[in-house]
Amino acid sequence: MSILVLGTVALDTVKTPYGVKKHMLGGSAAHFAMSARLFAKVNLVAIVGEDFPLRHIEFLKRKGVILTSLIKGKGKTFKWEGEYQGDLNTALTLNTELGVLSAFKPVVAESQKDIKYIFLANVDPDIQNHLLSSMRSPDLVGLDSMNFWINNKRKSLLKLLKKVDIYVANDQEARSLTEEPNLIKAAKQLRRFGPEMILIKKGEHGVLFYSDDFIFSIPAYPTDCVVDPTGAGDTFAGGFMGYLTRARRTDASALRKAIAYGTICASFNVEGFGMNRTARLRLSDLEGRLKKFKSFISI
Amino acid sequence: MSILVLGTVALDTVKTPYGVKKHMLGGSAAHFAMSARLFAKVNLVAIVGEDFPLRHIEFLKRKGVILTSLIKGKGKTFKWEGEYQGDLNTALTLNTELGVLSAFKPVVAESQKDIKYIFLANVDPDIQNHLLSSMRSPDLVGLDSMNFWINNKRKSLLKLLKKVDIYVANDQEARSLTEEPNLIKAAKQLRRFGPEMILIKKGEHGVLFYSDDFIFSIPAYPTDCVVDPTGAGDTFAGGFMGYLTRARRTDASALRKAIAYGTICASFNVEGFGMNRTARLRLSDLEGRLKKFKSFISI
Repeated sequence: MSILVLGTVALDTVKTPYGVKKHMLGGSAAHFAMSARLFAKVNLVAIVGEDFPLRHIEFLKRKGVILTSLIKGKGKTFKWEGEYQGDLNTALTLNTELGVLSAFKPVVAESQKDIKYIFLANVDPDIQNHLLSSMRSPDLVGLDSMNFWINNKRKSLLKLLKKVDIYVANDQEARSLTEEPNLIKAAKQLRRFGPEMILIKKGEHGVLFYSDDFIFSIPAYPTDCVVDPTGAGDTFAGGFMGYLTRARRTDASALRKAIAYGTICASFNVEGFGMNRTARLRLSDLEGRLKKFKSFISI
Repeated sequence: MSILVLGTVALDTVKTPYGVKKHMLGGSAAHFAMSARLFAKVNLVAIVGEDFPLRHIEFLKRKGVILTSLIKGKGKTFKWEGEYQGDLNTALTLNTELGVLSAFKPVVAESQKDIKYIFLANVDPDIQNHLLSSMRSPDLVGLDSMNFWINNKRKSLLKLLKKVDIYVANDQEARSLTEEPNLIKAAKQLRRFGPEMILIKKGEHGVLFYSDDFIFSIPAYPTDCVVDPTGAGDTFAGGFMGYLTRARRTDASALRKAIAYGTICASFNVEGFGMNRTARLRLSDLEGRLKKFKSFISI
């Protein structure tokens, strides 16, 4: 089964207590792809600049990611620079260079327009909307966003929310978009905005799922090895959507498993800089850790 | 089976978005007792002042709490005044009047000195130490504390930690005592301080248990009805220790169930001011909600 992801491909410079890494492959779509590839054929829609290293292209191809709709634009690749301190839960953005991202118009190849599973990772909601309009008959559409768009493109985001099935937000975003401090109330309000399924990511505290049918929550996988949490949310979304794409179902049982797989994928992501850890992942690694995780939360 | 709890009995004035309530029955030992009573005979060791309303005494007696070692001291009852805003996760202390608490020397009745299950709820660690010394042959000792003692009586607290089996701390306290931002690392460090079992309470995010044998974590029970979270941690501890007292075991299976019961007790506590909700609780209420909770976290 195929999944299409729209988002960013970036060059990340990250500083954590474990060191500094410059110009690593990053971005919402790239991190998503690195876990979703374990379950489904990932078609990536994004833009990079003329400075984008060939080795990253080759790496993505080697990992089975379809790059037909990865555009090379005139200018520099989107760059993000951030630092984590203390409990490594919150990134401090030091610098952002949009580069080619500022003029990005995604173009999906004809052959990809029939893909049924779609994830709109974090980019401008107008770009997400544009991409979604070009898809012929999506079965399941997931959406991520960020505080910048909630604050600056609220109308576009609310319009988009009416068209998607799953909204994936972190706890701050959920609270900010709904102006509701209680997360269950926030989830209910987000449901009223349109999406049938609401997934609230709480970083080290795990995830909360809300739909009209059921509520589900699990903690994060416990680890004392957090090296670089960049992309953990996108890695979670990749595992989650990837599993649903493979399962071709969104009943409660499939959703619970998808959320568990997403959680496990994210737990590997934080253990290394960039994609160091997720690039080496196999499905058997996930299965092994999932077994431990089940015992970890079993009453 | 009997359990003995040392702690505070207070008059709480609380302001939340749902209203203001003045001089409610509160305090760490009282909240603990209100959930522990569902599982075991609770023997309360605390002090109140001359102004302590008789109706609160009668209420505690009616709930089956043994007040043999509840002293009435000369002076005023300990009073706490606090306010909750926003997500109601953090209390803002507006005023504290120690009153009789400042000269509290707990005296345990002879008949209570053989009690095997003991919980040292939040008071001065020197007082906790003094109480513990007077117990003849404890089987299981739990300890709670707070940031004030971590900062001001660190030595006494560290000395006490060597003598207890279970340390119950919230996430801030765990981080503050160990100077370790990662909670798993913090739990491991707390283990090295002495207690075989470490329980870290994370408020709306649930709880993390750590021992040499296993790690366990569950989220809080999801509720959009948080009226007053005062005493939620003590209510959790009461359900947890109460269950262990009744079970007379501390194997992994008993500990997991005890933590689940504690979680459920705390979820009722936050739904009403003071003890409004926990005072009416029956074991069957816990069973009903526990069943829902299990489905809520089942993968």
